[in-house]
Amino acid sequence: MNIPSTGGATRRVKAALAAIDKVDRPEIWITLRGAEDLLAEAAEIDAAVESGTDLPLAGFLLAVKNNVDVAGIPTTAACPGFAYTPDKDADAVARLRAAGALVLGATNLDQFATGLVGTRSPYGAVRDSRRPDYISGGSSSGSAVAVALGLADIAIGTDTAGSGRVPAGLQGIVGIKATLNVVSIAGVVPACRSWDAVTIFARHLATAELAMGFMAGDSRAWPTDIRLAAPSRPRVAYPAALPALPPEWAAEFARQVDRLRASGVDAEPIEFGDFLQAARLLYDGGLVAERYAAVGTFLEEHDGAAGSAGIDPTVQGIISAAGTVPAHRYVADTARLEELKARAMARLEGFDALLVPTAPFHPTLVEVAADPVGVNSLMGTYTNFCNLFDLCAVAVSAGEVDGAQFGLTVVGRTFEDAVAADIARLIETTPPAPELFAAGAAVPGNPGGAGTEVGQPSSSVPWPLAAGAVAVPLVVVGAHRKGQPLAPQLEKPGAFWDGPVRTAARYRMVALDTVPPKPGVYRSDAGAELVGERWLVSPAALGRFLAALPEPMLLGSVVLSDGSTAVGFACDAVAAADGEDITAWGDWLADRSVEPKPRTVWRNLGEVALAGFSRGERG
Amino acid sequence: MNIPSTGGATRRVKAALAAIDKVDRPEIWITLRGAEDLLAEAAEIDAAVESGTDLPLAGFLLAVKNNVDVAGIPTTAACPGFAYTPDKDADAVARLRAAGALVLGATNLDQFATGLVGTRSPYGAVRDSRRPDYISGGSSSGSAVAVALGLADIAIGTDTAGSGRVPAGLQGIVGIKATLNVVSIAGVVPACRSWDAVTIFARHLATAELAMGFMAGDSRAWPTDIRLAAPSRPRVAYPAALPALPPEWAAEFARQVDRLRASGVDAEPIEFGDFLQAARLLYDGGLVAERYAAVGTFLEEHDGAAGSAGIDPTVQGIISAAGTVPAHRYVADTARLEELKARAMARLEGFDALLVPTAPFHPTLVEVAADPVGVNSLMGTYTNFCNLFDLCAVAVSAGEVDGAQFGLTVVGRTFEDAVAADIARLIETTPPAPELFAAGAAVPGNPGGAGTEVGQPSSSVPWPLAAGAVAVPLVVVGAHRKGQPLAPQLEKPGAFWDGPVRTAARYRMVALDTVPPKPGVYRSDAGAELVGERWLVSPAALGRFLAALPEPMLLGSVVLSDGSTAVGFACDAVAAADGEDITAWGDWLADRSVEPKPRTVWRNLGEVALAGFSRGERG
Repeated sequence: MNIPSTGGATRRVKAALAAIDKVDRPEIWITLRGAEDLLAEAAEIDAAVESGTDLPLAGFLLAVKNNVDVAGIPTTAACPGFAYTPDKDADAVARLRAAGALVLGATNLDQFATGLVGTRSPYGAVRDSRRPDYISGGSSSGSAVAVALGLADIAIGTDTAGSGRVPAGLQGIVGIKATLNVVSIAGVVPACRSWDAVTIFARHLATAELAMGFMAGDSRAWPTDIRLAAPSRPRVAYPAALPALPPEWAAEFARQVDRLRASGVDAEPIEFGDFLQAARLLYDGGLVAERYAAVGTFLEEHDGAAGSAGIDPTVQGIISAAGTVPAHRYVADTARLEELKARAMARLEGFDALLVPTAPFHPTLVEVAADPVGVNSLMGTYTNFCNLFDLCAVAVSAGEVDGAQFGLTVVGRTFEDAVAADIARLIETTPPAPELFAAGAAVPGNPGGAGTEVGQPSSSVPWPLAAGAVAVPLVVVGAHRKGQPLAPQLEKPGAFWDGPVRTAARYRMVALDTVPPKPGVYRSDAGAELVGERWLVSPAALGRFLAALPEPMLLGSVVLSDGSTAVGFACDAVAAADGEDITAWGDWLADRSVEPKPRTVWRNLGEVALAGFSRGERG
Repeated sequence: MNIPSTGGATRRVKAALAAIDKVDRPEIWITLRGAEDLLAEAAEIDAAVESGTDLPLAGFLLAVKNNVDVAGIPTTAACPGFAYTPDKDADAVARLRAAGALVLGATNLDQFATGLVGTRSPYGAVRDSRRPDYISGGSSSGSAVAVALGLADIAIGTDTAGSGRVPAGLQGIVGIKATLNVVSIAGVVPACRSWDAVTIFARHLATAELAMGFMAGDSRAWPTDIRLAAPSRPRVAYPAALPALPPEWAAEFARQVDRLRASGVDAEPIEFGDFLQAARLLYDGGLVAERYAAVGTFLEEHDGAAGSAGIDPTVQGIISAAGTVPAHRYVADTARLEELKARAMARLEGFDALLVPTAPFHPTLVEVAADPVGVNSLMGTYTNFCNLFDLCAVAVSAGEVDGAQFGLTVVGRTFEDAVAADIARLIETTPPAPELFAAGAAVPGNPGGAGTEVGQPSSSVPWPLAAGAVAVPLVVVGAHRKGQPLAPQLEKPGAFWDGPVRTAARYRMVALDTVPPKPGVYRSDAGAELVGERWLVSPAALGRFLAALPEPMLLGSVVLSDGSTAVGFACDAVAAADGEDITAWGDWLADRSVEPKPRTVWRNLGEVALAGFSRGERG
């Protein structure tokens, strides 16, 4: 292939086209866009970048599950007879494109997103990226394999019972399923409307998080007490028993729990029955009626012509049966679900997240064909409850077991997406580079190849903040710095540690006679720069922190050395007058033995003033 | 009746028994507790009060709708064949009793709370409190009439489509239907489980709010950005057209809107179609399946024996039909409901509440008998959408029209119960005392009589705070005081003005050179008491307020003259040094012309100290 010296998007598209050709996995795609079309759009993106347009995802190659609208590409939901061609992108697609992502094409899936196996499609069963006798997992099968094979950087999936996680687990990649409706489902063919989520796949968590920041919208407001980080020593629950796992997988799970403990996590087993019972409600109960509400009318209309419409017989069986459920059974099962949720949430009390295997085992295509419904149900053992309880989940690769990819999922409470991501980060292992990556890497002028992500995330803040959640910067200089005695006051409500900062040269610092010892800061025309750290705190956590703040501490606006402002600490006038001036330390945590003696400096700079202030106040 | 000199509860029970006897409305009660039983419990309450037990509702006479469990009283839901005798109180009842309320008995209702008329009961139609040819309204018919006739101080109702509001409107009393699940529905016979609420009736809003503070639990957490008050100039929406209202009622509604405008409210018409369409979903759509899920099995089991079980034929017809709804229709209607809610909420954007007539007209018993389903549906025109959208509502008396009680309902957003109550307070007119009140008042030693509430609410804070919502006290001394230029910064996020306070004598005050002018406060060993005001602010609003606070203002703990603490303002060291000392004013809003000259005082007390501080800082 002759590669002209064009921009990054163009180079990446060419590499991807070559790679797609080389892997020869036509079942991945229901619609792959033509080379001309792709290169034209790539050229536009490159030109935009060239002209200075801010496109943080410029050149990110995106695959889109074909139950999610892409303007001009037929939305089939893997059922040819169902196809319609939308004239606008789904919200999730539009948001990623607006940030510079380029849609390669629409990917195969279990028809109507009904399945966790990836075999239920007239467009062909999607096979495992490494072992073609094995299933890919589904229903977002094509999207997951496109990412696992390095054909796409990111891919959109959907997830009702685990369709955005099971294939991530089996393919050794990352899948993020956010809290429900954090990503808009507008422009998505519903599976079970109440529990559908749009998800993202990537090979690395950081890439997936970056994409989530753009893809998630404001369709559901983040709470004002959102937790933005896990505490420095998280508490993680895991199931006391692991049904459906073969012994090697169960042993690997135990090893992973130990590994997590070694990395500073408190992990404790919990009774898991309520979670499993909720999972069964979706398969065996009335809740499946949502599937009929979504596409039942279509199936009925094409009942006599199943062959021509390309309706999968297993899917048809499931959805048709769902049409006979009476509403009062659905209502009763919803009530039962709420009971189970209340009990399950009580089990999670005091934990930051729940750790589960993503898939319980990795079946072959033959095994699934022999028992399509039974194996499928088992696949959802550790994913199914999640959307029903409106929890969020991050599935990450945790190595291999018995030749298969071994995936773990961190499940978080509603809106605790950043907490789950933090804990998943402790687990993540870089997936082994598929052979194909070499093809991408060989493309001249493209150092990373089509098989690697485009650079690192441009922002290190938790993705919910990029997606509209609000936090307040709080600058601390003493006992609330990371690892210091009062840091837990910020960690517990989920403050995110945003790194070191330096104030503008307009503050003085005194040592306060408090337990624990604290510095006191006050604004001064004879001030100096002080070293501090910035936390990002939810508005409610900040309000509560202020409400509990003891005298003589105060909070207000502080100016940093870069000219930005944040909320910062001050001490009151009496404390400022009484405290020993330690401004010269510059940093409360400085090695004080090598610093100029603080008392001398204080005497030189401030004694008269402070002594006068103090005396006057008392007089 | 010979009244011995006993405690308040005993006197009130005796008065109530006499009043119940006198009104001769046996249809109000399904079970009225015996005199001996009541007097024994009253004696216990009186003894407890005597011995110093804190019972804020001691002596409050409580009537309980008979679909809500009272230990030892059969719960019939107005269907004799359905009856069971619970051994414990429903949560709502238990909470009111724990505060000292005394249950008089269980009241009649539209069977299974299916109706808004009060006529659908084998225990008899409950008639209007003043005009016995008219309906009481329902389904909480007996509870509403018991309160309207002064037999009970407060009464528990339930409300799915308006059952806690329509009878309040027709009976000229107050009905509060909180945000869903703020009051626990444990121990309540479900009507439509997803939208059932336990409500309170009282003759005055303050009494109803007091009771709500005790009755509401923590079954659903209040948000950390809860609004606790309406702004000083609220914006209220009202329907641009008023279907189902006869001309006199529509004219009265217009007069009420004008009256509200005159009291300082901005009222604007909105298009109301989305609200009305949601209302119809409950009657004509699949959502009614919830009724079958609640009691359908019972009805089926007694289908052949309707007479013996006492099943109302209209109710049976409605609920039986609900059993045939397919689940996919319920799911589709739920999706439709969400669409309507999104549009309706968009219409309310920028408004603090929605004002509607509570009932559209007041039918006679004969009119309802002639068209039991049609008239009933019309009764819910302005109540039905409320629970479906998870809004809160306060129904209050607004005088009379055409001989009937005219009621208005203020509908608030989810969790904005305090905002709705504030606006309802502007509307409330004291209901005319029924003749019966005289009977109560005539009882020696009971100045209020059975027909008046027991004193005033013991607390003036918004009832959600009594019910577990969290707010932070914030003391302000200057520009954030009520009516001052920056007060809207606190009013907009719903801060509640809690009245004037005085700091401890440990602060000094300077005049800051800011726009608008502000006082600056700092702690000082030579401090004085300062006059201020206390707001109660949600944690999130406080955090946001702090995040937006400009230099030189600071916030921290302040000690008040009563020894309590609150968050309060300070100014930073530079501002304290630069500002003119005005501590001697004592009050930023004092009539400064008659105060000692501030400059002189400042010179006397603080000049040396502050000048020194300032000079030193700058040196």
